[in-house]
Amino acid sequence: MGSSVAMESDYGAARELSPLQKSRALYRPDLPPGLQGTAVTVEYGDAATAADVAGAHVISHAFPHTYGQPLAHFLGKTADVPDAAAVITEPPVVRVGVVFSGRQSPGGHNVIWGLYDAIKAHNSNSKLIGFLGGTDGLFAQKTKEITDEALSCYKNQGGYDMLGRTRDQIRTTEQVKAAMNTCQALKLDALVIIGGVTSNTDAAQLAETFAESKCSTKVVGVPVTLNGDLKNQFVETTVGFDTICKVNSQLISNVCTDALSAEKYYYFIRLMGRKASHVALECALQSHPNMVILGEEVAASKLTIFDITKQICDAVQARSEKDKYHGVVLIPEGLVESIPELYALLQEIHGLHKKGVATENISSQLSPWASALFEFLPPFIRMQLLLHPGSDDSAQLSQIETEKLLAQLVEDEMNKRLMEGTYKGKKFNAICHFFGYQARGALPSKFDCDYAYVLGHVCYHIIAAGLNGYMATVTNLKSPVNKWECGAVPITSMMTVKRWSRGHATSQIGKPAVHMASVDLKGKAYELLRQNSSNFLLEDIYRNPGPLQFEGPGAETKPISLCVEDRDYMGRIKQLQEYLEKVKRIVKPGCSQDVLKAALSAMASVTEMLTIMSAPSFAGQATI
Amino acid sequence: MGSSVAMESDYGAARELSPLQKSRALYRPDLPPGLQGTAVTVEYGDAATAADVAGAHVISHAFPHTYGQPLAHFLGKTADVPDAAAVITEPPVVRVGVVFSGRQSPGGHNVIWGLYDAIKAHNSNSKLIGFLGGTDGLFAQKTKEITDEALSCYKNQGGYDMLGRTRDQIRTTEQVKAAMNTCQALKLDALVIIGGVTSNTDAAQLAETFAESKCSTKVVGVPVTLNGDLKNQFVETTVGFDTICKVNSQLISNVCTDALSAEKYYYFIRLMGRKASHVALECALQSHPNMVILGEEVAASKLTIFDITKQICDAVQARSEKDKYHGVVLIPEGLVESIPELYALLQEIHGLHKKGVATENISSQLSPWASALFEFLPPFIRMQLLLHPGSDDSAQLSQIETEKLLAQLVEDEMNKRLMEGTYKGKKFNAICHFFGYQARGALPSKFDCDYAYVLGHVCYHIIAAGLNGYMATVTNLKSPVNKWECGAVPITSMMTVKRWSRGHATSQIGKPAVHMASVDLKGKAYELLRQNSSNFLLEDIYRNPGPLQFEGPGAETKPISLCVEDRDYMGRIKQLQEYLEKVKRIVKPGCSQDVLKAALSAMASVTEMLTIMSAPSFAGQATI
Repeated sequence: MGSSVAMESDYGAARELSPLQKSRALYRPDLPPGLQGTAVTVEYGDAATAADVAGAHVISHAFPHTYGQPLAHFLGKTADVPDAAAVITEPPVVRVGVVFSGRQSPGGHNVIWGLYDAIKAHNSNSKLIGFLGGTDGLFAQKTKEITDEALSCYKNQGGYDMLGRTRDQIRTTEQVKAAMNTCQALKLDALVIIGGVTSNTDAAQLAETFAESKCSTKVVGVPVTLNGDLKNQFVETTVGFDTICKVNSQLISNVCTDALSAEKYYYFIRLMGRKASHVALECALQSHPNMVILGEEVAASKLTIFDITKQICDAVQARSEKDKYHGVVLIPEGLVESIPELYALLQEIHGLHKKGVATENISSQLSPWASALFEFLPPFIRMQLLLHPGSDDSAQLSQIETEKLLAQLVEDEMNKRLMEGTYKGKKFNAICHFFGYQARGALPSKFDCDYAYVLGHVCYHIIAAGLNGYMATVTNLKSPVNKWECGAVPITSMMTVKRWSRGHATSQIGKPAVHMASVDLKGKAYELLRQNSSNFLLEDIYRNPGPLQFEGPGAETKPISLCVEDRDYMGRIKQLQEYLEKVKRIVKPGCSQDVLKAALSAMASVTEMLTIMSAPSFAGQATI
Repeated sequence: MGSSVAMESDYGAARELSPLQKSRALYRPDLPPGLQGTAVTVEYGDAATAADVAGAHVISHAFPHTYGQPLAHFLGKTADVPDAAAVITEPPVVRVGVVFSGRQSPGGHNVIWGLYDAIKAHNSNSKLIGFLGGTDGLFAQKTKEITDEALSCYKNQGGYDMLGRTRDQIRTTEQVKAAMNTCQALKLDALVIIGGVTSNTDAAQLAETFAESKCSTKVVGVPVTLNGDLKNQFVETTVGFDTICKVNSQLISNVCTDALSAEKYYYFIRLMGRKASHVALECALQSHPNMVILGEEVAASKLTIFDITKQICDAVQARSEKDKYHGVVLIPEGLVESIPELYALLQEIHGLHKKGVATENISSQLSPWASALFEFLPPFIRMQLLLHPGSDDSAQLSQIETEKLLAQLVEDEMNKRLMEGTYKGKKFNAICHFFGYQARGALPSKFDCDYAYVLGHVCYHIIAAGLNGYMATVTNLKSPVNKWECGAVPITSMMTVKRWSRGHATSQIGKPAVHMASVDLKGKAYELLRQNSSNFLLEDIYRNPGPLQFEGPGAETKPISLCVEDRDYMGRIKQLQEYLEKVKRIVKPGCSQDVLKAALSAMASVTEMLTIMSAPSFAGQATI
């Protein structure tokens, strides 16, 4: 089938930039105060524990060299840090490699640009080496030195085409060995891996293996994925998510306006985003479609495909009573795996694939109940369900047209109700859309440009500090850039251990990994959606955020789901430390007996409560 | 099935505008100098002849009251017009009705806004009445008075949802009667119809009928259609075309970037635009995809589906020799009707539909060759071809997935070549997209906002001048607004008469109509595409115009296909008149014999040449 590694000449070829692209190429993001100038201070915090308390032991065992390292914060020279562990003032020459791993996400190029700028600002003899064609290029030592000239056409531009990407993993023993060979052959001080949950898990594993093997290359991860599902106490959002949601919201809003103008169609729109429904949630908050069916809701309520169909039909009927025969329904691509019986059917099919059963024989080897469901489904969906699963063991989500399945089931049911006389409105008409690939290569929003560029700088400081197995982080993102806080977090502290899993994912049981984060059904973004959902459903209060703007109104907006959450986890940890200091200051020898008594009693109860909440058994219930 | 007319309460309901929408709502387009102030001069030109010289007799016969009226130009008070026919200085009170007819196109609301502003500026007692739910509202007298408040949420906004739209025609005797009743009952001085070729043909017919019936309501048409296919010597482009091309080009460019980043897929993208390929041509000039297959090229070269498949396969093979396994192919939705054998098959199917043959029996009643082709096609395409044709007698173009058909045929052929060893590259993988409804409701571009708003003003001046059966026109659009020229053209002068037609369209033979304009294969826009097509094919010089901007770089851009053409037809007519005047001035009694002799000889040859070129037989070859 030919070589899977493209030749160097394919990349970075002369491009014709449009006027807007040219203007974007000249835009330079600001840096937060902590990163300005060449003297950046590193402040180390406590050793980070895993959020998954129950799994901490397993994680520490699997990552003896890289688990339990402290958090790091990067602060400007002028910051008031009495006990700073180190002040970096003599920048050494470094050789750094960088690779795109996983699906292209708008803003990826800016991570490389930020990293390059930081490296060169500290020592112009340092080198940044890009791997061509993703991890395949890393394994095969296909490189391209990053220069000002190479970067010039890619600053603030979409895609991953400056370097390209291929496969999404560094996992097998051969792959890890090949990566180590490359790092040693090229004498790399560090390797920066740009990607999502899977790539960052791989980065942590690589860091551990390098440490174990006394390979001096440090591994750094960067949270870049358009799905927005790499999200935890340290990572508020990922690079690309804002752009994807803006481009999709614009299209959804256009469709809403279209529906309202023509008044004769229901649009069923499936959105990319893999298993989690972050993109669908954000787009719903931006555009106010009539309905959005989040996979997390469906999974939590254990809704069947019939329950969902009925819900939509009831909505169509309620709208018809207001003489409305149009509407817009958002469907995340991960929905299909959230519907219990479809998921179970998919698991059976994947199991048979793994056993080597030929695709055309699978339907005859299904269990009776799975077979009954399978036969009930329309033929096009059957074909799609039979497709081989993707590299990360999930179904080929983007290939399964759940929107068409639901539209057809709803149409059948509405026709039935019409015949039976329980529905007296006009005929139900649906048009289906899949908004996938058309957003992925978009010009990144200002927010994604800024965030990615700053993350690139942070990577340099992680490398300069000699840290291994860390992810670059920027927090307090909902505030302006001059309030952003830059840090580094051991990737292992973002890991959890799955103790049970449905179906084919059993191979992952017991292995620590950075897992994708679902939409938090207790979070503020979801709450905001639910507060408005009946208005959205019946009142057509469609809102159009418009095309992504780079100047003027709208250019500075950020994801609503980012802005409504109390993120700034690190800020709140600091706040807690201030309280503890305050208690110390108040309760010193010389204070009254009453004050001491009150303090003892209060702190005893606080510590007892926190001990209970942090016990493995409790955490196990809450997070797994 | 319930009433097809929506209730008033559905329209103009409270909307939540995003910050960008709010900022757009505050934008006010400039007026060209000719329309500024309240005193606008009308200058009448010669009686307009139909471009279709051969059909002129038929047209004049069908439109005895409205054919042969003069062109009108609107000029500011200060313009130097020695022989102006009329200077309007006493603005009368007018009652005007306005209706959306046909598919929603971005900018439609601004026509109403411009008309409203002009009406109120001239006499605050005048009234503008909108018809709710399109032409159905016109027939049923469902109205809503346009006020400042009603407009406030719709200025510079997309969609047609301020009034809504339903059916696309005013054609049957009952419909025309109902429209006349409404105009008389509401005592309308004028009715403004906003739409494309069909709606403007209907407007001309209505104008003629009203004149014949001594109904005093004047009818005015406005060129608004996203397909860009209402285009002739008087109409340079239509409202909505720019926006649609910008939104689609952005998405196409994103997909190009995606293709180049992942390097493993060919994207087949079908674009809306009805029978003509104007949208596909403009998007190709904006985004530089690898291929675009214009329906007009296919029709002109009489390419079969197999020829097109082979062309694409050869391109895939040529690219594989450069180690490229990705690409982007644009396919206009009208392509299917441009492919001779598919068109003939569609005609047979429509013929059987008309005879009342049930859909499930059609395939068995096809002629042998049509049946052979039908059986060759993949099942999903067969089903789509069997769908009932739309209201304008064309196939349900948006329902036929030509992109999937071509992708499948190309895949089959590439697999065959791979097996035979004539192709040695990697497996061909295609992903299909249809970019249709997601652009139609978009926020209109600045250009469309400006153009539509000015057209609305022009409508008022047409009404004030008491003209009937005219279309509002603005020319010299590629220049800045202060160079735009405003006029009015009898719709009949844009008509042609089809003397032959394939298949089901025989009913249109001999009837004058404004026909949709195909892409001009001798035009400069097409030439530009062809000059670059081999570079586009092999070099991946993808260009991303970016998301539609309202401020900063890119906000002022206009369609490339508009800017490269020598439009300004009226300007050139003026230039000719200046030459004629100059000859008159030079060749006066007293000039030398030689000068007279030279002038006579030259003018004799010019007039003879033009007489030959204008003869019906010659024109018949050139334009039909």
